[in-house]
Amino acid sequence: MDGTAMQIIICRSILEGRLPEMARNTQVAADPNAPPITQILAKYVSSHPSKGWSEAVDHEASRTFLNWVGCAVGAARHEAAQAALAAVRMLEPAPQATILGRGERVDMASAALVNGITSHTFDFDDTHLKTVIHPAGPVASALLALAEVTGASGRALLDALVLGVDVECRIGNMMYPDHYDRGWHITGSTGVLGSAAACARLLGLDERHAAWALGIAASQPVGMREQFGTMTKPFHPGAAARAGLMSALLAKNGFTASARALEAPRGYAQVVSTKCDWSEVTGELGSRFEISYNTYKPFACGIVIHPTIDAAAQLRAQGVKPAEVRAVELRVHPLVLELTGKKEPQDGLQGKFSVYQGFALGLAFGRAGESEYSDEIVRRPDIVELRRKVAASADPSIDEAAADVTVTLADGSKKHVFVEHAIGSLQRPMSDADLESKFHGLADPVIGEAKAQALIGACWNLARAADVRALCEGARP
Amino acid sequence: MDGTAMQIIICRSILEGRLPEMARNTQVAADPNAPPITQILAKYVSSHPSKGWSEAVDHEASRTFLNWVGCAVGAARHEAAQAALAAVRMLEPAPQATILGRGERVDMASAALVNGITSHTFDFDDTHLKTVIHPAGPVASALLALAEVTGASGRALLDALVLGVDVECRIGNMMYPDHYDRGWHITGSTGVLGSAAACARLLGLDERHAAWALGIAASQPVGMREQFGTMTKPFHPGAAARAGLMSALLAKNGFTASARALEAPRGYAQVVSTKCDWSEVTGELGSRFEISYNTYKPFACGIVIHPTIDAAAQLRAQGVKPAEVRAVELRVHPLVLELTGKKEPQDGLQGKFSVYQGFALGLAFGRAGESEYSDEIVRRPDIVELRRKVAASADPSIDEAAADVTVTLADGSKKHVFVEHAIGSLQRPMSDADLESKFHGLADPVIGEAKAQALIGACWNLARAADVRALCEGARP
Repeated sequence: MDGTAMQIIICRSILEGRLPEMARNTQVAADPNAPPITQILAKYVSSHPSKGWSEAVDHEASRTFLNWVGCAVGAARHEAAQAALAAVRMLEPAPQATILGRGERVDMASAALVNGITSHTFDFDDTHLKTVIHPAGPVASALLALAEVTGASGRALLDALVLGVDVECRIGNMMYPDHYDRGWHITGSTGVLGSAAACARLLGLDERHAAWALGIAASQPVGMREQFGTMTKPFHPGAAARAGLMSALLAKNGFTASARALEAPRGYAQVVSTKCDWSEVTGELGSRFEISYNTYKPFACGIVIHPTIDAAAQLRAQGVKPAEVRAVELRVHPLVLELTGKKEPQDGLQGKFSVYQGFALGLAFGRAGESEYSDEIVRRPDIVELRRKVAASADPSIDEAAADVTVTLADGSKKHVFVEHAIGSLQRPMSDADLESKFHGLADPVIGEAKAQALIGACWNLARAADVRALCEGARP
Repeated sequence: MDGTAMQIIICRSILEGRLPEMARNTQVAADPNAPPITQILAKYVSSHPSKGWSEAVDHEASRTFLNWVGCAVGAARHEAAQAALAAVRMLEPAPQATILGRGERVDMASAALVNGITSHTFDFDDTHLKTVIHPAGPVASALLALAEVTGASGRALLDALVLGVDVECRIGNMMYPDHYDRGWHITGSTGVLGSAAACARLLGLDERHAAWALGIAASQPVGMREQFGTMTKPFHPGAAARAGLMSALLAKNGFTASARALEAPRGYAQVVSTKCDWSEVTGELGSRFEISYNTYKPFACGIVIHPTIDAAAQLRAQGVKPAEVRAVELRVHPLVLELTGKKEPQDGLQGKFSVYQGFALGLAFGRAGESEYSDEIVRRPDIVELRRKVAASADPSIDEAAADVTVTLADGSKKHVFVEHAIGSLQRPMSDADLESKFHGLADPVIGEAKAQALIGACWNLARAADVRALCEGARP
């Protein structure tokens, strides 16, 4: 900080009526090694070449986008979406942008909010496992609404998605786990920066204006973990999407912010985290892309149950029928039973915390999406009977990410499956076909199978679309 | 937290893919003595009687409102307002609510944003000295917009203003100074809760829904001090006003949040502050009102200059004319010269950091508002000549809040003034007439003197107004 800037800050703070302490303390919290990451990221976002990455990275962006659309469409009628939309309607919004899975259109900032909420409502969206950030919600929700209004191309949207997720997750890497452990819901607190970066890119802001966009966003971290279990959890990516979009619109129109908003002693990072590993932001910037490490959930429940469901689905694929099963021996890490050992779940939500129910769903349906976790299915006599056949035991020698299943069939024969890494992990990513199947599970009940199929096609073709309007139109019931 | 709630939180966090650490750490940060302040404040806001306080408290609310309107009208044409409004226009907002000092109308959330920005743009708004919170910006900006749309009475608005400022400042008291020292701009970070509380009151939400409003707002603290000196500083109260208003609208429509969002281990207070003195929230709740401790700035510069300006204005009132002044001996605390010792300011902004310019303005005009801190006046020959006559010396025996001035006149006679507490301090509050004069200084250049006078009347009469629409109409140029 040069002397003039320092003086202005001190003098401004006189206006706060608290000058003496300010004058003494201003530099105390300073990390003298902080690189100018606000400027570095602003330059990166504004100048990195279109598709300046491998085909694999670009394809991961398409997968991220597809998965996000499916999750948002799937929750479009959830009561959280209804409540959010009712509040938005009180502003009499202009019909600028699409709410995925619904007929209404609202102003682009409100569309970013609602789509961000619905995409996270089922806790079924993507996960950047290094930081437990759900990257797409804040970034894609802002981008699609902005692209719909500005007429941006699909290619421009994908570029902005890759860069926005990169900014979001790099800032997450910089602060994780301290920031998350302190109680921040990292998806919202870093998502606002990813959203701002992405929208700055899509708006074509230059470095100076992109820095303002990041700066304005830096003043608006969203979300505490205490909200888990309430509608305010999915509100976090929605509010982050909205705030990031507005930050970019403000910057575009000349609204200024500190050019050191992210790294300064009393800027974002040092205020919300005691761990600030700047090299996580700057290392391999422009050559390593965090979207490469994005993962997608195959099952609508906690990941510790996923290996068990996966094993059951594999048995089903081998021809094992529920009616033929006499007994199931399940061995898992002790933590799995500690957390999801509910033997007699009474409704869909409780079913998500039952590894027994997870096994039953995997064997009966070969999948465990939001539809399979219904109250009806958890109470179905054949499902109850099947899950009661499961004898689970805790075995510390089995990894938390693994499951060992032996089924004894009616004829006395046995089948054994060992899952080392469940489908959906970084080691065994969901295939494109898996993602399409998940998409149908979410979207078919809302917009119908035919529209869902067409929408899947539109998502895969995004990079070649002149604009996003047909895709948005296709996401309406 | 009961066992079920605990289990839901743990199980939800499985979905984050990070269960083991979560299970071990969930209660680590817990303060077992945290009272249920979310519920306590929700009950308070929803059930405290209308005008359930003294006449003096009620009058302070009117003064707070009047001062806020003047500041917002005064900055209505500032470039920060232009930039913010240009961004808002990109949403094609419905013409629901007034932007003070301008002809445009926008949706109520955007009006809350813009009025919150303008009210703090000149750093000339109110100050709760115990916490350096500027209370009115976040609270009144949300309330006026909401009242205009809902047709609420002036009485209802004043009730909500008192309660919203009380919530905001009590939460500030709970966390100050730790929270501020860490780098949070406390006006935005507590303002969002004041705004939500006030809007919950104005909407007539019951305790349960008011708790959700506070809960949703608790996930959205706004503002870091690094932004001081940029437009993002006044953005903070604006964004807080907007977010608090939307939190109340969401809650009204059934959007849920944690009922322990403020006090839980991973809720608002313990995330953004290490000092959490809960008794500051609960002590004398409903009998002591923090709005009583609100102060208003008489001069548009840092408070360390205020005693000097005040002394000069007193000399002027005694009949001292600038042309008669031969020499001025000014004795102040060393800090005053350290911070505001600029002898030859070149423009209006630099003038704010010159105790010499401050003296000249006080003697020449009897006031030092935003209009007096113009580039023109700082360069006027008579003003330059006057400020050069001031010989300032540092005297550690003089308090930071005081100033000792001796003027030698052309005839050799001397006049002496000692100011112990400047006008605008808690010890010497601005009179109602002073506030009106300040209001004129801000509003006359924007809406004209006659409209400003009428608007002052409307502000004093707020408690008796059936609705706020005439007042809003009167704030347009």
